[in-house]
Amino acid sequence: MHTQKDPDSCGVIVLAAGQGKRMKSQVPKALHEIGGKALLFHVLDRVFETLPHAKVAIVLGHEHQKIEQLVSESPVFKIHDICFVVQPEQKGTGDAAKCAINSEWGEKILAKKLPVLVLPADLPLISDELILQMTEPLTRSVSLRLLTTEFQDPTGYGRVIRRGKKGSILRIVEEKDATLREKQTNEVAVSIYFFQSSFLKAMSQRLSNRNTQGEYYLTDLVAFAVQRKKTIDILNWKNSDDVRGVNNAWELAHAQRLMNERVVKKWAMQGVQFIDPWSSWIDVSVELSSGVTIHPGVILRGKTKIGPDSVIGPRSVLTDVVVGREVAIKTGTIADSSVIGDYCTVGPYAHLRLDNQIETHVKIGNFVELKKTKIGDYTSIAHLSYLGDAEVGKRVNIGCGFVTCNFDGRIIEGERKHKTIIGDDVFMGSDCQTVAPVTVGQGAYVASGSTITENVEPGSLAIARSRQVNKIGYVAKKGIN
Amino acid sequence: MHTQKDPDSCGVIVLAAGQGKRMKSQVPKALHEIGGKALLFHVLDRVFETLPHAKVAIVLGHEHQKIEQLVSESPVFKIHDICFVVQPEQKGTGDAAKCAINSEWGEKILAKKLPVLVLPADLPLISDELILQMTEPLTRSVSLRLLTTEFQDPTGYGRVIRRGKKGSILRIVEEKDATLREKQTNEVAVSIYFFQSSFLKAMSQRLSNRNTQGEYYLTDLVAFAVQRKKTIDILNWKNSDDVRGVNNAWELAHAQRLMNERVVKKWAMQGVQFIDPWSSWIDVSVELSSGVTIHPGVILRGKTKIGPDSVIGPRSVLTDVVVGREVAIKTGTIADSSVIGDYCTVGPYAHLRLDNQIETHVKIGNFVELKKTKIGDYTSIAHLSYLGDAEVGKRVNIGCGFVTCNFDGRIIEGERKHKTIIGDDVFMGSDCQTVAPVTVGQGAYVASGSTITENVEPGSLAIARSRQVNKIGYVAKKGIN
Amino acid sequence: MHTQKDPDSCGVIVLAAGQGKRMKSQVPKALHEIGGKALLFHVLDRVFETLPHAKVAIVLGHEHQKIEQLVSESPVFKIHDICFVVQPEQKGTGDAAKCAINSEWGEKILAKKLPVLVLPADLPLISDELILQMTEPLTRSVSLRLLTTEFQDPTGYGRVIRRGKKGSILRIVEEKDATLREKQTNEVAVSIYFFQSSFLKAMSQRLSNRNTQGEYYLTDLVAFAVQRKKTIDILNWKNSDDVRGVNNAWELAHAQRLMNERVVKKWAMQGVQFIDPWSSWIDVSVELSSGVTIHPGVILRGKTKIGPDSVIGPRSVLTDVVVGREVAIKTGTIADSSVIGDYCTVGPYAHLRLDNQIETHVKIGNFVELKKTKIGDYTSIAHLSYLGDAEVGKRVNIGCGFVTCNFDGRIIEGERKHKTIIGDDVFMGSDCQTVAPVTVGQGAYVASGSTITENVEPGSLAIARSRQVNKIGYVAKKGIN
Repeated sequence: MHTQKDPDSCGVIVLAAGQGKRMKSQVPKALHEIGGKALLFHVLDRVFETLPHAKVAIVLGHEHQKIEQLVSESPVFKIHDICFVVQPEQKGTGDAAKCAINSEWGEKILAKKLPVLVLPADLPLISDELILQMTEPLTRSVSLRLLTTEFQDPTGYGRVIRRGKKGSILRIVEEKDATLREKQTNEVAVSIYFFQSSFLKAMSQRLSNRNTQGEYYLTDLVAFAVQRKKTIDILNWKNSDDVRGVNNAWELAHAQRLMNERVVKKWAMQGVQFIDPWSSWIDVSVELSSGVTIHPGVILRGKTKIGPDSVIGPRSVLTDVVVGREVAIKTGTIADSSVIGDYCTVGPYAHLRLDNQIETHVKIGNFVELKKTKIGDYTSIAHLSYLGDAEVGKRVNIGCGFVTCNFDGRIIEGERKHKTIIGDDVFMGSDCQTVAPVTVGQGAYVASGSTITENVEPGSLAIARSRQVNKIGYVAKKGIN
Repeated sequence: MHTQKDPDSCGVIVLAAGQGKRMKSQVPKALHEIGGKALLFHVLDRVFETLPHAKVAIVLGHEHQKIEQLVSESPVFKIHDICFVVQPEQKGTGDAAKCAINSEWGEKILAKKLPVLVLPADLPLISDELILQMTEPLTRSVSLRLLTTEFQDPTGYGRVIRRGKKGSILRIVEEKDATLREKQTNEVAVSIYFFQSSFLKAMSQRLSNRNTQGEYYLTDLVAFAVQRKKTIDILNWKNSDDVRGVNNAWELAHAQRLMNERVVKKWAMQGVQFIDPWSSWIDVSVELSSGVTIHPGVILRGKTKIGPDSVIGPRSVLTDVVVGREVAIKTGTIADSSVIGDYCTVGPYAHLRLDNQIETHVKIGNFVELKKTKIGDYTSIAHLSYLGDAEVGKRVNIGCGFVTCNFDGRIIEGERKHKTIIGDDVFMGSDCQTVAPVTVGQGAYVASGSTITENVEPGSLAIARSRQVNKIGYVAKKGIN
Repeated sequence: MHTQKDPDSCGVIVLAAGQGKRMKSQVPKALHEIGGKALLFHVLDRVFETLPHAKVAIVLGHEHQKIEQLVSESPVFKIHDICFVVQPEQKGTGDAAKCAINSEWGEKILAKKLPVLVLPADLPLISDELILQMTEPLTRSVSLRLLTTEFQDPTGYGRVIRRGKKGSILRIVEEKDATLREKQTNEVAVSIYFFQSSFLKAMSQRLSNRNTQGEYYLTDLVAFAVQRKKTIDILNWKNSDDVRGVNNAWELAHAQRLMNERVVKKWAMQGVQFIDPWSSWIDVSVELSSGVTIHPGVILRGKTKIGPDSVIGPRSVLTDVVVGREVAIKTGTIADSSVIGDYCTVGPYAHLRLDNQIETHVKIGNFVELKKTKIGDYTSIAHLSYLGDAEVGKRVNIGCGFVTCNFDGRIIEGERKHKTIIGDDVFMGSDCQTVAPVTVGQGAYVASGSTITENVEPGSLAIARSRQVNKIGYVAKKGIN
């Protein structure tokens, strides 16, 4: 746990107005996801983790209504102080900050003389430590703190121009306005600032757009401060991965990889054993327990939770699945929105399609599909079956090739899909079908190859197949084969 | 698009005679593939992309007939000027170049005084930019241009020996003839040259094989030029990955990885979203559209094309498959030589084995195999079925466990596999089989569990199963379970 | 092959007493596996590969009985000279070495004046070359040889403190006792030593635990030697990957990756073609033949052997499987403890669950599960079937959806699972079940959709299904659909 700062310590402007044209996507940039969470929410989560009482203004532009709605509906919005500022035209970061400081939000910040942290929404990898160091109080003489870092390839970033090689800062020059010589430096600014709000207010009004892009650059405030002989703090950040931007799908993939490495490393340090952590993709929202083993190529998404000592086999894909303790999920199993109880084995190549509830000690074998199905303790469905809209009791044995015919084209009481109920201790032979709605009573025995169209009484044998006839010598006579 | 050079500007000798003993493979080295294309064709494609009117001589030795045939049958051969020179014995690169310049091809080149680019066939990663720079016109005083690069580990490559550390070149010394001190340099030659053809002609006749390998080295021409006080241009290539050779299966895997990274990066920059680009393998011949999402572990091969906004789920493997727009290919789906129409969903774990044609809005679900089958719009085949040699109409519902019995051991009119035809709007219950050749007419309804051996008239109900009998109390009496 | 040293050359102390608390696992650290082999066994295998006549003492503590038993039962124990020393309390590496040298084993070593190599069990990546160089004879004046290496991030390791920057060694200081300045050095000790046994005996008695950890450090012996003006040999090891320790699950994953890269590179250099070697996981015990192709994501475990020119498709997982020559294992196939003969094709998504024996030229297709089943030459089981406890002859054709009902709840002659026997040349139609125990005689033909409950005579046709009835116009009348 990081030490949290003074609750009322600052305002935060999150820059989220950009469309992200280079993403070449319909989705606005701030909503692209890594680790199962939109870029903007990564930034908000880091802000409120370190500054729970921050007053946040999100500057929106492209698709602002969509983003505003998503944020408004999120839990983070309910707990924290967030407002939205719409930037009418995307005229640059300087204009965005100006929109914020000129807004109602800005008035409150100025009234309280709170300093203002500026963060772009497309830096999902910023760390708590970075925010904490950026928001250390500014001494009276300091107008702004600027974060810089060194990129091996600084292409596309604003370069930090200093007086001499390691001298004090002069200005930041955007890539497109930089001379060849200026482009040589590896030190860049990534649009992370901490301003005295009065300085931000005053200076943002003076920004000009006389540059190659025709935009208002927030970076120009650095030169303004230099011209006015204001002191500038520089926080040079060593771990440049923390401030990698996301400007196209290739950078998004890199950010996804870095985020994933953080997530898997965190779990590994807590005792989760990954055979190949670089091939497994674990959403930031997933929870793993001690003693869990994750085989190569596993994908765990959403609200998935894995209980102690469970083993997730190679290439399993679980989305919103709660797995109990000592469960074996075998190779290539896919599950969505399901609960799998303690001591179950599932797979390989099982498909828990939707909304299944599996009790304990259940065995689900290969090429089995379940949908909206409940399975009781100690039941076995070992091979090549489909159960949909079914309730199966305890200690049931379902043979190979079983099908719940939950749809026959009819609509009964408004439902297109009908229920199959199978009681405790039923033995269902192989290659049976139950035409729903239908109930097979407790302890009943259904002979292999039967199509069950009517209810089966408890303890009875149901059989619906033809007698076998052997025609001796038939093959030779008829010349088959 | 790179600027293309003067159409008649040069000859090109591609060195493809080597067996590649260290590959330890039956396949001749030039035919090993990365990105779904043989090494030799990568080199030819780069040559003709930049020099469409180049006159190419491919020097062949090991398995020369096989390679000659493959090249002759390829589209590149039909459009461009390619001839073959057989090197009778593999006596080194110098001998190979000599064979070419002494051939009929060489006579033409010499007659036209065209300069000659020499390229090894095992450098599949050469870039267009490299070829353009290498084939910049040679000034009159320059006999040859030599490409060098720095490898962190130069083991196995000919070292560039200079007068002093950064002085002019003296000679190139092959690894096996190099002194320990000479081996220290990281600057190497990779058998890429651009010669005045007259110099190549004259000097290649003077090559000797008095060295450790007993081979004629092309590298010796550098020393010849120095001795004769000829000027040598050196093109020092910064991106050494472009000129990594392929000498064994380990280097082939590295080249494959580099080529794949180029391919996926190209698509990502065009807006294709890869969750884990380093785990997906996309042949160079594949075409992707904007808005496509590629999940981890996808393999796309051959002439596969993916339409706009389609999603290719984890670990899908598509070979020569044309996918429409907004299609969802789910986890682990395998498809070969098939067409999948717009708005379909396929998988997870579906297997479109061969020559299938799926119209629009079709749902193919889990554990379904299709072979030589046509499926009409809005049809659903959701679970555990096999359809082979079938034509299925529109809006058909195929239940779980359906099988087209396309083979019964008989040969009818010369065919071992027989056709199943299912009309529009048919409802096929679960666990049905159709014994082909057979037709199920439009709008017919087949009851679950039926084996259909005769045609079903349109609009009729077909049923072929036994009545269910429940033997009450049977289980207790017989002591089953 | 490395040159092996004088057979009686040395004693070896393997430090394996640690619990490995940071692993956060129930398994003692030395038993964690990479490449399918426990860390301790990797170290023992390297020791005996280079020093077959070494006299090894394994110092055990945490779970010493379990480890002792495992080692005792291993082949390496039967061939080589291994004894166990229990360290009663885990009081540090110095105490561990002292326990060993004070033991009966130590007495023998001292009596013979053998030098002693000390190796931690958690360095599974040590190379033969490292052991050979470490155990070069010590000249008379040298008390110990110390292995050091440079880590880019030396956190957690004992730092080597020298007189000046490159001067002679003064001492090793553990991370927790190091000053900030001392922590700056990248040169570390990794607990690999080669001692004159008399020096080890004498000095280990003098160790003190007055340090931050309250432990007896083996590293202190370096300072003791310096104080007594003894000569210390330093072997500075360039390849620091060889001596990466395993202290938590994250480091275990890194070690696993490095070990796997060594294994796949070894096979690639022998001509095995890996499309993506970094995604395939090959146990050190697996054997591959020339001409084998391994597609991405393959996992080969245990005693798996792959025959010449076989192709292992993407994401196949084989454990203890013997595969013949020119076999095609297709995408996603899973097999355990089975034998697959020459020229077979298996998969995609086939599951050879346990103890299957497949003869030659067999085709096993998609979504087929086999368990304890024998399949004869040229037999085909192409789609969606389950065979358990079956013997299938030669040239058999098994249709789609076949099930051996090997379990019906009854116990016959003490067996819960019953046998199915299918003779040569049988044609089994689709969607058939055989209720075991049952025999289908040679050349018989079983009609599609039949449930076979009684034996079928050779050459006869067995049929057990109902006649088809078509109810014309039924759909329109009844309003189905």
